[in-house]
Amino acid sequence: MGERQLAHCRDGAVRRRWLAELCEFLAFPSVSASPARQSDLESCADWLAGHLQHLGLDNPAVLPGLDGAAPSVYADWLRAPGQPTLLLYGHFDVQPADPTGWHTPPFQPTLIGGRIYARGASDDKGQLFAHLKALETWLATERRLPINVKVWLEGEEEINSPHLSVFLDREGRRLHSDVALVSDTEMPSPKQPSIVLGLRGNATIELEVRGSSRDLHSGRYGGAVDNPVEVLSRILAGLHTRDGHVAVPGFYRRVKNWSAEARRRLGANSLSDEAFLAGVGMPCAAGEPGFTTFERATIRPALTVTGVQSGYTSGDKSVIPARALARLSVRMVADQEPSQVAQLVMDRIHQLTPGSVRTRTRVNSLSHPVDMSASHPAFAAAERAVRRVWGVRPVYTRNGGSISAVAALRRRQRIPIVVLGLGLPSDAIHAANEHLHLSQLFRGIATVTQFLEELRQ
Amino acid sequence: MGERQLAHCRDGAVRRRWLAELCEFLAFPSVSASPARQSDLESCADWLAGHLQHLGLDNPAVLPGLDGAAPSVYADWLRAPGQPTLLLYGHFDVQPADPTGWHTPPFQPTLIGGRIYARGASDDKGQLFAHLKALETWLATERRLPINVKVWLEGEEEINSPHLSVFLDREGRRLHSDVALVSDTEMPSPKQPSIVLGLRGNATIELEVRGSSRDLHSGRYGGAVDNPVEVLSRILAGLHTRDGHVAVPGFYRRVKNWSAEARRRLGANSLSDEAFLAGVGMPCAAGEPGFTTFERATIRPALTVTGVQSGYTSGDKSVIPARALARLSVRMVADQEPSQVAQLVMDRIHQLTPGSVRTRTRVNSLSHPVDMSASHPAFAAAERAVRRVWGVRPVYTRNGGSISAVAALRRRQRIPIVVLGLGLPSDAIHAANEHLHLSQLFRGIATVTQFLEELRQ
Repeated sequence: MGERQLAHCRDGAVRRRWLAELCEFLAFPSVSASPARQSDLESCADWLAGHLQHLGLDNPAVLPGLDGAAPSVYADWLRAPGQPTLLLYGHFDVQPADPTGWHTPPFQPTLIGGRIYARGASDDKGQLFAHLKALETWLATERRLPINVKVWLEGEEEINSPHLSVFLDREGRRLHSDVALVSDTEMPSPKQPSIVLGLRGNATIELEVRGSSRDLHSGRYGGAVDNPVEVLSRILAGLHTRDGHVAVPGFYRRVKNWSAEARRRLGANSLSDEAFLAGVGMPCAAGEPGFTTFERATIRPALTVTGVQSGYTSGDKSVIPARALARLSVRMVADQEPSQVAQLVMDRIHQLTPGSVRTRTRVNSLSHPVDMSASHPAFAAAERAVRRVWGVRPVYTRNGGSISAVAALRRRQRIPIVVLGLGLPSDAIHAANEHLHLSQLFRGIATVTQFLEELRQ
Repeated sequence: MGERQLAHCRDGAVRRRWLAELCEFLAFPSVSASPARQSDLESCADWLAGHLQHLGLDNPAVLPGLDGAAPSVYADWLRAPGQPTLLLYGHFDVQPADPTGWHTPPFQPTLIGGRIYARGASDDKGQLFAHLKALETWLATERRLPINVKVWLEGEEEINSPHLSVFLDREGRRLHSDVALVSDTEMPSPKQPSIVLGLRGNATIELEVRGSSRDLHSGRYGGAVDNPVEVLSRILAGLHTRDGHVAVPGFYRRVKNWSAEARRRLGANSLSDEAFLAGVGMPCAAGEPGFTTFERATIRPALTVTGVQSGYTSGDKSVIPARALARLSVRMVADQEPSQVAQLVMDRIHQLTPGSVRTRTRVNSLSHPVDMSASHPAFAAAERAVRRVWGVRPVYTRNGGSISAVAALRRRQRIPIVVLGLGLPSDAIHAANEHLHLSQLFRGIATVTQFLEELRQ
C-alpha cells in the first residue's frame, strides 16, 4: 500500500461517504431465517451488485438462489495476468433482529461513540464492506488491483447455507481461485489480531412432537394423556448427561484427539475462562469436564437447543398443546462426519420418544468442520499485512462458530483460506445492539488493502 | 313452562332472531389472555349490558374490572317477593383463537350442518346465551319471571379469574343469592345430561429461566455455558416421575381418598377410557398408575405445562437464548390447598435450578377445587327440569376443569350451585373449530326456562 492508498483510506470525506454507504447497506432487513424477508434479501443483493459495478469490478451478477432460496452476488477483476486470484467471501444475510432490548432500531443504522449499531454491523455486512472498500482503495487510486480478485457474497450463511452444495455444483468453476479471504469472525482484542485455523461444523435439526389431533383442555385432560411439551422436555433433557456430556451413543467416536502440546499452544493464544465469560453475564461456565471453556467452545463438539415453542405463553391458556417444536444445532469438530452425527442425534431422539406421541425430525442444513494449517505462503502474506496495520503479528486460533462456505471451499477446491476476523468479542453479534467499532472497520480496510499487495508475486 | 313459553321457544322467527343475536355476541374477539383485546372485552360487556336491559332486566351495569382487568356484567329482576333468588353465572371472555386449523374465521360465526362455529360458541358464550334466552322466554310471554334472578357474567374466567377474590370482596353483597346455576361444562352425550358435583382447582404458574444477559452465538458459546432452554427442559422433565406421578414432595399429601364404593359409583356415570380418548387422536392414555382415565382427569391432581417459548423456531437461528419461558397449570382436587400446593411446585422448581442460571416463578391465579353434594332441593328441581326436556334423569358426575367463580361462591356464600353443562365433549373447546350444536342450545333454553319454574315455591 503506497502513499496514494494511505491517503485515500485516511481521507475524511472518503470515510464519511463510506459510512453513508455502509448505513445504506445495513438498512436492508436481509434476514435469511425469515421467509417474509425474501424480497429484502433480493433488494440487498441488487444493491450489492450495483455497488460492485460502481467500484469498477467486472461481470457483476446476482446469481439466483435455488428453490426460491436467497441469491448470491458475484463480481470479478481478472486483468492481472500471471498474478494469483483471490476469492473474497462474505455474506449479506443477517440474523433475525427479534430479541427485545435494542436501544436503536436494528435496521436504522445509528452512529454512537465511534460505533455503528445495526443488525449485521459486525456479522457480516460491516466486515465484507471492509473488503469492498479495500478494492475501492486500489481502483480509485490506481485504476487496477495488484492481483486478480473474485468476490462472492452469500445470502444464506446465517441459516447454515442449506443450498450451498448444489450452488457450488453449479458455480464452482466461476468461483475457482488460488486463495480465499474471509472476514466473518472476531479478534480477541484490538491489540491482538488473529487468524482462525479451525471452525466447527454445524447440523441444524428440527424436532416436532405431536400428541393429540387438536389442542386439549388442560383441565379436562390434564393428568390423563401425555403432553407433547412434557415429552419434548424429557427428550431434550435426555440429550445431555448431568455432567455436561452429550448423551448420544457414538457422538464422540470420531472427535479428534489433541496432544497436550497442541492444547498448550492453543491455550496460549486463546481467551482465558474469565475473558471468555466477560460480558456474558453468567456466574460460571459449564460443559464437558476436563476441558477449558475455550476448548469446550472450539475443539469439542456441542449440542445446543436454539429454540422451543409450544402452546401459549403470552398469557395463561388452558391447553395441552397438540404439538411442540424445538430446533437444535449440533456443532461438530474434526474428524466428525456431520450427516452421520446428525443421524445419531435423531436416532437418540426417536429412542427417547414414548409410544403415546409421534416425533418428526428433519435435518435442515449440514456443514463440515474446518481444520487448517498455516503453511501456505498466503498466511505469511496475511501476517505481514496485519503487522503493518496493527503493529503486531496475528495469533493463530480457533473459533466455535461455523462458516459453511469455508468448509465447502476447503473440501472442494482445497485452497488455503485466510479467516481474518475484523470484529470484536463484544460486538453482540446474534444479539440485541449488534455493532461494529469504526476503528476496526478502518483498520480492516487498510489491512485488506495491504493484503492484496502482499499476495502479488 | 306453559304453552306460551313452549310456543315462544319453538317459534321459527324467534329462533332465527336468537341465532342472529348469538352471532353478534360471538363476533367479539373477547380474549382475556391477550392484553391487546381489552377494548374488545369492554365492547362485549357493553353489548351484554344493553342486551340484558332490552330483555327487561333491571339495574343492568358493567362492573369495572380491577387494575385494568376485564369488566363483569350484572343485571337483576327482583320483583318476586317471597320467592328464592337464583344467580345465573357465565363468562363472556374466550380462549385465544391462535391454533391453526380453523376452517372458518373464529370470530365470524358460521352455521354449518346444525352447528354454530366460533371461538366461544360452546365455552361459554353459547351456554350463557341459553340462560338469557330462558329469561326472555318468561319476560316476553308473561312480563315476569317465576322467581328472583341475578345475572353475573364474568370476563376473566379463561385466565382463571385472577381478580375474583378482590372482586367478590367488593361485589359479594350485590351477588348474594339462594342458589346458582352455571352452564360452562358438557354432558357426556345428548342422551345423557349430567350435573357436575366436582371440579378441580387450578393454580397457574409462570416460570422464567434466565441465563446470559443477552442471546449468545450458539457456535461461539455452545458447549461452554448452560443453556436456559436446556435447563428449563430438565426442570420440566423433573416435575414428573417416569411412571406418571407428579415429582413434587408433598404434592399428594392432602388429596382426598375415595372409597372403592364411591369410585364404583363415579365410574358408572363416567366416560369409559375408550369414550374419553375418542376424538383425541392419541393411541393411548397416560398418567398415574392405579386410576382410570376419567379418575386421573377428575379426582386426581395434575401438573400440566401449557406453553413454552424460547429462542427462535420459525427458522434456524444460531443462538443460545438469554431466557426461556414456561407456563404451568396445576389442577388440584379436594382437599388440596391451592396456594400451598403452588408453593410446593415452585420450591421444587428452585430446587431443580443449577447455580449457573436464575429462575423466577410467579403464581398468576389460584382457584379452589369444588366438591359438592346434591342434597339441596335445587338439585331435585334441576333433575325435574332436565327430565321434562331430555326425557331422562341427569347423572351426577365430575369434571376435571376449573370454574373459579363456582369455587369462590361455594366458599363465600355457601349456596348450592347447579353446574348443568349444555356442551358436548366433541365441541372442541379451547381448540380450533369450536362449535355448539343448535339442538343443544334450544334444549338448553327450554331446560333453564323450566328450571326457573321448578324453583318457584
